Amino acid sequence: MRMYDIIAKKRDGGVLTDEEIQFFITGYVNGEIPDYQASALCMAIFLRGMNAHETAQLTLCMAKSGDTVDLSSIDGIKVDKHSTGGVGDKTTLVVAPIVASLGVRVAKMSGRGLGHTGGTIDKLESIPGLHTDLDRDRFFEIVRKVGCCVVGQTGNLVPADKKLYSLRDVTATVNCIPLIASSIMSKKIAAGSDCILLDVKTGSGAFMKTVEDSIKLAQAMVEIGEHVGRRTVALITDMDRPLGDNIGNALEVQEVCSTLHGKGPNDLTEVCLDLAANMLYLAGKGEIGECKKLARRQIDNGQGFEKFKEMVAAQGGDTAVLDDTEKFAKAAVEFPVPAEKDGFITAMDTEKCGIASVELGAGREKKGDPIDYSAGIILKKKTGDRVKKGEPIACFYAADAEKCKSAAHLFEGAVTIGATVPAAVPLIHARVTAQGVERTEF
Amino acid sequence: MRMYDIIAKKRDGGVLTDEEIQFFITGYVNGEIPDYQASALCMAIFLRGMNAHETAQLTLCMAKSGDTVDLSSIDGIKVDKHSTGGVGDKTTLVVAPIVASLGVRVAKMSGRGLGHTGGTIDKLESIPGLHTDLDRDRFFEIVRKVGCCVVGQTGNLVPADKKLYSLRDVTATVNCIPLIASSIMSKKIAAGSDCILLDVKTGSGAFMKTVEDSIKLAQAMVEIGEHVGRRTVALITDMDRPLGDNIGNALEVQEVCSTLHGKGPNDLTEVCLDLAANMLYLAGKGEIGECKKLARRQIDNGQGFEKFKEMVAAQGGDTAVLDDTEKFAKAAVEFPVPAEKDGFITAMDTEKCGIASVELGAGREKKGDPIDYSAGIILKKKTGDRVKKGEPIACFYAADAEKCKSAAHLFEGAVTIGATVPAAVPLIHARVTAQGVERTEF
Repeated sequence: MRMYDIIAKKRDGGVLTDEEIQFFITGYVNGEIPDYQASALCMAIFLRGMNAHETAQLTLCMAKSGDTVDLSSIDGIKVDKHSTGGVGDKTTLVVAPIVASLGVRVAKMSGRGLGHTGGTIDKLESIPGLHTDLDRDRFFEIVRKVGCCVVGQTGNLVPADKKLYSLRDVTATVNCIPLIASSIMSKKIAAGSDCILLDVKTGSGAFMKTVEDSIKLAQAMVEIGEHVGRRTVALITDMDRPLGDNIGNALEVQEVCSTLHGKGPNDLTEVCLDLAANMLYLAGKGEIGECKKLARRQIDNGQGFEKFKEMVAAQGGDTAVLDDTEKFAKAAVEFPVPAEKDGFITAMDTEKCGIASVELGAGREKKGDPIDYSAGIILKKKTGDRVKKGEPIACFYAADAEKCKSAAHLFEGAVTIGATVPAAVPLIHARVTAQGVERTEF
Repeated sequence: MRMYDIIAKKRDGGVLTDEEIQFFITGYVNGEIPDYQASALCMAIFLRGMNAHETAQLTLCMAKSGDTVDLSSIDGIKVDKHSTGGVGDKTTLVVAPIVASLGVRVAKMSGRGLGHTGGTIDKLESIPGLHTDLDRDRFFEIVRKVGCCVVGQTGNLVPADKKLYSLRDVTATVNCIPLIASSIMSKKIAAGSDCILLDVKTGSGAFMKTVEDSIKLAQAMVEIGEHVGRRTVALITDMDRPLGDNIGNALEVQEVCSTLHGKGPNDLTEVCLDLAANMLYLAGKGEIGECKKLARRQIDNGQGFEKFKEMVAAQGGDTAVLDDTEKFAKAAVEFPVPAEKDGFITAMDTEKCGIASVELGAGREKKGDPIDYSAGIILKKKTGDRVKKGEPIACFYAADAEKCKSAAHLFEGAVTIGATVPAAVPLIHARVTAQGVERTEF
């Protein structure tokens, strides 16, 4: 078998065999296949596509390219969750405790923030004392005892994806459904859970800008999941405005607490209940409507919040800040951002809002940059809200006023104020399962 | 400007600007743009194409990527000739002396054989004493004095093509018209002649297997030539059987001599007269019919042969072997290959015939392999000829019988003997000029 022939076959629109895909992944990971051949193949895949079987095989080969996590020693059904990334997306920290409090196991590996999107690991680490770099034994122990645990990625998981993603990133071959789907699903499969809930974000703050593209990506991933025997459901959720009001690590944990107390913003609460309901559904806890009621009950009765505290304590975190969020370290500067004119907020460029929060210190421009956990944005107004000139639409938090001024410039460019109320959009655009696509009637 | 954006633009079917193409070629040659980005762009070009303007700009940037030859110090019109490569193609050594004997200058750089096709430089070097590694001054001096000279490539000509071709060769991006056309034409433009005659071979022994593809390639190259102010004409000539009867270096020079004496095989003679006529036409020597008569006259009056001897002598070669070709070194073994049955030769897989000659020692499998100048094939029968079982259809020449047996096995697989005469095909399928395509009526 020769890599040349594999490239030529895909170039001409052919369907690669399982053996050809295995040959490519194995050879690329072990260095026998050079980058310049891999990038030519990625471009051919970008322009010629891959069918469902090829995509599933690519995913499996990638999943098996390094260490995999074996969760079989943990009793019960393990459900994983993955978000394609957004701004203000703190849902994992709300839904993992809710479903764990109902007996569903969540053994989750999360990432750090990069670019305009935040990362769950950074958010958790804003809690004093909390560790996310647990070894495999401690990770498993917490999942067994508490029911949920969120750690950073450990071991040599999916080296094929690491190498291939870096290459795609510099050769304009990222935005291609079979390659995105296999990248995400290979990591979920290697992480070992029985079921997978995918949160595919759509809109100005998301990787996928349109609902139709998001549905296509969701379908490709659900097909892969089913193909390899992992029950998979995807929700297409809105990211055309930030999710919730708070952006920034400690600020988001504070919003997680209020949401688990039943006092969170409506949009965040609704999305979390839908995500939790689908995780419970995947774990066999009943029909969706029933599962959503179960989830809501765990907010009302406080058991979701208690489970969150339990998890944070098990990971070494100081739960005092959760009981009284005023105890979180405060940013040196509070900087209100006023509306420039009267009217309605008709649009928020969510990617730009994310970039403004990075500017404030809440995120990283490049890997390894330090993070200011107390920095970020609290939105006072969101898309659809009426504003008066001079009234604060957001409050910025940062270490100095310079950062705030520079971020305010970005943020003002992200917010459009118009004369009329914009059309409302659903929080959940669609639900994709192996049975098909259910679009939200709206 | 970023290479990433250039790749993404072409990936999405965009048209690259002159500046973007220049940025790519400059960056790739100086090593700032890595192979993996260049190969992704080549695949995008392969699948999305390039328009005539982009192809011309790519060609010019490549032509200017290294040294160029300035022929302006040589009086008269300089006409170059390029063949896309075939089996038994010794036309340069026939037509260069013919046109030079009529006052047209031919300052030609040729290549060595690789794979199944031979190279003019190897053929010339089968003449004892002849040098092809002349320095620029000596090369120019011979062109001025004799009118024609054929040398190997000197200096750092078109480094962009060297680097890009090696990459395309291993990333399945060779067979793409804008990339082939720019590769060939960049070298012709850098070589400095005023006019260019292209011999685009078509058929089983050629790079382009169909007449239509050959015409498309020819059109792309003629457009480039006209775009950069070099008068360019292309002939689409048949390579569905070897050209002439002799394959192998010294054997081909012997056939050059007989052809210049008016005793060559009809197919070779006719193709050479058409090529010579078109070179004379490009140099302004008259209409095609007239030019062909002029060329034929230089065979009849012996002046073409005399010019060939003059060129060989100027390059240090021993002309005694040209006056009496029996003086060429003989191969140790002569090995007749008989017909396997009665019938007509209905097809010759010309690439396989070329590979058989390499097996005999006449060519190289990889760069730098030694060549046996006396080795090769003399065809006794060709496509369309009637054969009787046991009658020799070819005679092989090699250093030992083992090579002959192995080559005979290949050769027999290349020749098809059937019951009926195959349809005749034209030697020249079409002529492509800036004015359009003239197809041969047949």
